[in-house]
Amino acid sequence: MSEMHALVRRLYPLCRSITGSGLRRTLEIIGESIPLEISEVPTGTQVLDWTIPKEWNIRDAYIKDSSGTRIVDFAASNLHVVGYSVPVSATMTLEELRPHLHTLPGRPGLVPYRTSYYAETWGFCLSEETLAGMGPGPYEVRIDSTLADGHLTYGEHVIPGRSAEEVLVSCHVCHPSLANDNLAGVAVATRLARLLAREERHYTYRFLFAPGTIGSIAWLARNRDRAGRIRHGIVLACAGDRGPITYKRSRRGDAEIDRVLAHVLRDRPHTLVDFSPYGYDERQYCSPGFDLPVGCLTRTPYAGYPEYHTSADDPDFVTEEAMLDTLDTCVRAFEVLERNRTYVNLSPYGEPQLGRRGLYESLGGRSDTKQAQMAMLWVLNQSDGAHSLLDISERSGLPFDVVADAAQALLVAGLVKE
Amino acid sequence: MSEMHALVRRLYPLCRSITGSGLRRTLEIIGESIPLEISEVPTGTQVLDWTIPKEWNIRDAYIKDSSGTRIVDFAASNLHVVGYSVPVSATMTLEELRPHLHTLPGRPGLVPYRTSYYAETWGFCLSEETLAGMGPGPYEVRIDSTLADGHLTYGEHVIPGRSAEEVLVSCHVCHPSLANDNLAGVAVATRLARLLAREERHYTYRFLFAPGTIGSIAWLARNRDRAGRIRHGIVLACAGDRGPITYKRSRRGDAEIDRVLAHVLRDRPHTLVDFSPYGYDERQYCSPGFDLPVGCLTRTPYAGYPEYHTSADDPDFVTEEAMLDTLDTCVRAFEVLERNRTYVNLSPYGEPQLGRRGLYESLGGRSDTKQAQMAMLWVLNQSDGAHSLLDISERSGLPFDVVADAAQALLVAGLVKE
Amino acid sequence: MSEMHALVRRLYPLCRSITGSGLRRTLEIIGESIPLEISEVPTGTQVLDWTIPKEWNIRDAYIKDSSGTRIVDFAASNLHVVGYSVPVSATMTLEELRPHLHTLPGRPGLVPYRTSYYAETWGFCLSEETLAGMGPGPYEVRIDSTLADGHLTYGEHVIPGRSAEEVLVSCHVCHPSLANDNLAGVAVATRLARLLAREERHYTYRFLFAPGTIGSIAWLARNRDRAGRIRHGIVLACAGDRGPITYKRSRRGDAEIDRVLAHVLRDRPHTLVDFSPYGYDERQYCSPGFDLPVGCLTRTPYAGYPEYHTSADDPDFVTEEAMLDTLDTCVRAFEVLERNRTYVNLSPYGEPQLGRRGLYESLGGRSDTKQAQMAMLWVLNQSDGAHSLLDISERSGLPFDVVADAAQALLVAGLVKE
Repeated sequence: MSEMHALVRRLYPLCRSITGSGLRRTLEIIGESIPLEISEVPTGTQVLDWTIPKEWNIRDAYIKDSSGTRIVDFAASNLHVVGYSVPVSATMTLEELRPHLHTLPGRPGLVPYRTSYYAETWGFCLSEETLAGMGPGPYEVRIDSTLADGHLTYGEHVIPGRSAEEVLVSCHVCHPSLANDNLAGVAVATRLARLLAREERHYTYRFLFAPGTIGSIAWLARNRDRAGRIRHGIVLACAGDRGPITYKRSRRGDAEIDRVLAHVLRDRPHTLVDFSPYGYDERQYCSPGFDLPVGCLTRTPYAGYPEYHTSADDPDFVTEEAMLDTLDTCVRAFEVLERNRTYVNLSPYGEPQLGRRGLYESLGGRSDTKQAQMAMLWVLNQSDGAHSLLDISERSGLPFDVVADAAQALLVAGLVKE
Repeated sequence: MSEMHALVRRLYPLCRSITGSGLRRTLEIIGESIPLEISEVPTGTQVLDWTIPKEWNIRDAYIKDSSGTRIVDFAASNLHVVGYSVPVSATMTLEELRPHLHTLPGRPGLVPYRTSYYAETWGFCLSEETLAGMGPGPYEVRIDSTLADGHLTYGEHVIPGRSAEEVLVSCHVCHPSLANDNLAGVAVATRLARLLAREERHYTYRFLFAPGTIGSIAWLARNRDRAGRIRHGIVLACAGDRGPITYKRSRRGDAEIDRVLAHVLRDRPHTLVDFSPYGYDERQYCSPGFDLPVGCLTRTPYAGYPEYHTSADDPDFVTEEAMLDTLDTCVRAFEVLERNRTYVNLSPYGEPQLGRRGLYESLGGRSDTKQAQMAMLWVLNQSDGAHSLLDISERSGLPFDVVADAAQALLVAGLVKE
Repeated sequence: MSEMHALVRRLYPLCRSITGSGLRRTLEIIGESIPLEISEVPTGTQVLDWTIPKEWNIRDAYIKDSSGTRIVDFAASNLHVVGYSVPVSATMTLEELRPHLHTLPGRPGLVPYRTSYYAETWGFCLSEETLAGMGPGPYEVRIDSTLADGHLTYGEHVIPGRSAEEVLVSCHVCHPSLANDNLAGVAVATRLARLLAREERHYTYRFLFAPGTIGSIAWLARNRDRAGRIRHGIVLACAGDRGPITYKRSRRGDAEIDRVLAHVLRDRPHTLVDFSPYGYDERQYCSPGFDLPVGCLTRTPYAGYPEYHTSADDPDFVTEEAMLDTLDTCVRAFEVLERNRTYVNLSPYGEPQLGRRGLYESLGGRSDTKQAQMAMLWVLNQSDGAHSLLDISERSGLPFDVVADAAQALLVAGLVKE
């Protein structure tokens, strides 16, 4: 019943980063639900304009006061250590330690989330309240981490369809103990993959679980040809908070996926925003060289909620109900994508006589029958090869499903062809 | 003075259908005002996806009670018989008869209009009040009709213009005693044809009086080449009720006829609606194979008034004033079509000196003179071969006639050419 | 401090017309600030559809009453004589004189401005109050003018740029003692030319001071090839009244100059109006044969203020502050034009790693740094050769300068090329 929320809770304690064992363990757990093909990209590999960094692993970290009490303890929350901190083992006064301490002065009870992937440094994140209680020291400071040649890891799950054309669902999996950003996205994607596998599909669906930025860049670098097969895609993030859905359009702005999301969201509270080159991995998919039709589906977007990138983004912040709603949006969008074809009317001169084919109820009356008949007339009228069923649904104001059912009936009757 | 209304009253009692003698007699009466070329298409002829049905004729029909009184009588109103009813002669109880009786429960005093062209059946239409007064029977039930091989009839009136390009005015003539739908349209079209004939025209005008759907389909099937000459067209229907004008755009949506109607209607109450593949014969003209620039001009559109397809749509429901207003709209639209040319400025570098050609009043002052001069400057500035006079009128905000007069003055002065 | 206003006051008393010594003297005075190349076009020269008229010069003019008092005196204001009046020397009663007298009955204290360039006549302009005080006469009436073969004069100032492509600034200089129309425009243009010369420019800037209509037509006739080099242009007029700026778009409507002006004006009170073929010399530049991207920049447009074309349009009507604001608008618009380039991202697959190039501050924080980084991401994302920096500024909502600075930084880093 709360399958997605259970996955969020299980993944939450792991210390993920853009490389390392926490990331690998996360992919293993996802792999229990949906088989993942794992890729390991060695440190130093050139990927597009970037280079795979060293692999980072951490076992323990703390700041101990003179009584031996851990004032700040990695074991309590992995947010306490700045991601990619180099090893430290020293005794320091507060004054010496202070430049390495990060707090949120405006929200004294919360621990911030910080990383420093590409500049070698170290640091601790703690609450302003903890900092306020700290005397002049000295303190025992220790970060038991390693930064060494290794690999960057990502995982893929593919559901083959009748067509080699792909729909991409991409989730970043590099954030440590943060629930909405992005364990909720991971949980929704995992559930979505299982739902989609239940029936035969037109499109091939590719789920990519990769560290943000460098992960999607690595995938793109190693799959340049495959990228060209992506016909539609979404980046799934912040999928579990209580806010309404936000869909950020692809760079193209009017890609089919953009129109489909607008269509399935139109009768519910939602926000549509134009593309901007900031956010999640749509930045990479929508770089001008690739310009893929990939948008970003979230509930409240990044930095749009006060819990963002703090210890308050914990499993209680996300709900199964919200994740189900995000899942439902994806399912409905993909249903439209699957059925959105463009037909050609084979009897385009005048209306074909529907009555003698049993497609026109002379008595009519029931409103769903009338809607179905209107949908047939619309499909016949617009099917000149230039209008998709989504176009027809939008122009006619009829629900997409009714239009698609009408097209199916006309296809069976031999009045239209694909 | 009320010439159109008189025609409505004269045609009203005839029992029209999509074939038969009532239809023929209607065309004869129209032909007294404007000569019609009559076409007879034999039963069984394949026309596009359809087949011409048997011809239906009816002489009498009634339901008599045991006292011999005609409870329901075709002679009182031809709406009482379901169109295309097969012959019946039987004695039946009310219970047996009931499935063949059609009423309007919500409007107990009115008789509905029903047909069954393509499913062989029979029936009577009556008021709910009449039905309520009927005892268990038995009743003598008789429909003296014939459904036999014959012809479908339609009539055309053509006003030749300087150009072989055509403007089509199409009216359905298949409804029996219903005044607004479509005797008012027939009356307006007939008067319009006489008005247009008074002076030489650029376009050739074709008036088509044909039964709905199957009639326009038959015409299109037999005039595929001619259809290609139709540059503009309107389907004229519901032309006499007291509501404001509604213009439904052609499938193209931005055809010249669509822009012209929007232009002539803009300063008066009206409604513009987008094309939909339901309504009158624009459905056929705008099928994707033909995709003709034909819109539909009505006052209140079909099904938009409570009298629609009932005995309340009688001659008192339509007014001469409303028909004159519909006529005026057509006349003004066709005036714009006639004058809407695209010119080329022969002196396009800088403004030509209008003063030395007597085209620029140095003193100015009168506002119509100023408007005329502004119109000349606009025509000169925009006449690069890509902007019609209607474009110029819309861009400048000047009345079309003023712009067209300015173009004429510039043409005479040799400053523009067509 | 009030350099522009001083120029207005100095030029104000001169009796300018479309030809003659007042026009020449005006160009001489402008030439003291910015060197002008003077062109003299002989009477009778065919220029496009027009012919250069005779040159008009005037020395004196008056209406004297019987006591010898000058009731109306050219020496007091050159507006008193209808421009291009032929010589007169006569004694006339008021009744005889009356058809030659022009007043503004609605504004009894003001003297109107009138001309009659192309119809040979003569006349005086005076206030309604003066007229009311005039007895039956007789009056000594004298206009000491000459209308003879001569020349039409215009002046040009060119600031060469790296490119032969030109930006045109055009001012009419044919109005006598009228300050806003157009001495303020002349003063702003003169100051603008000096400002632009201070640094190297991409574009070549051409300033044209010419009589209205016939002057720009003469220039166009003699510079057909050069006209083709004009990439952007503005007609500068009514540049000194206290109203907000109005920009009238070029005929094209979406020329770069049109978008640039809309951009620099967007955060301040202003009005944008579409092109119309009436106003100032944009009428000639935007005639369909040339169709140059030239708009018209004014404060309150012609005929939009009650002082227009009357003696109330005097130096007190215009302010240095308003002229400085007009100047600032021009400067900012030309800055955008100068910097508005289209770049190509040389690393278009994924985002380039800005951090290792020192272009990405890992700590961030300062809002101008964040804006600069967003601008770099936008420039990289949109620089596919189809989007200019102005496009990017408008799509991103970032200030143009920030976007242009970001592009410059990326250019230096070798990440984009022009």
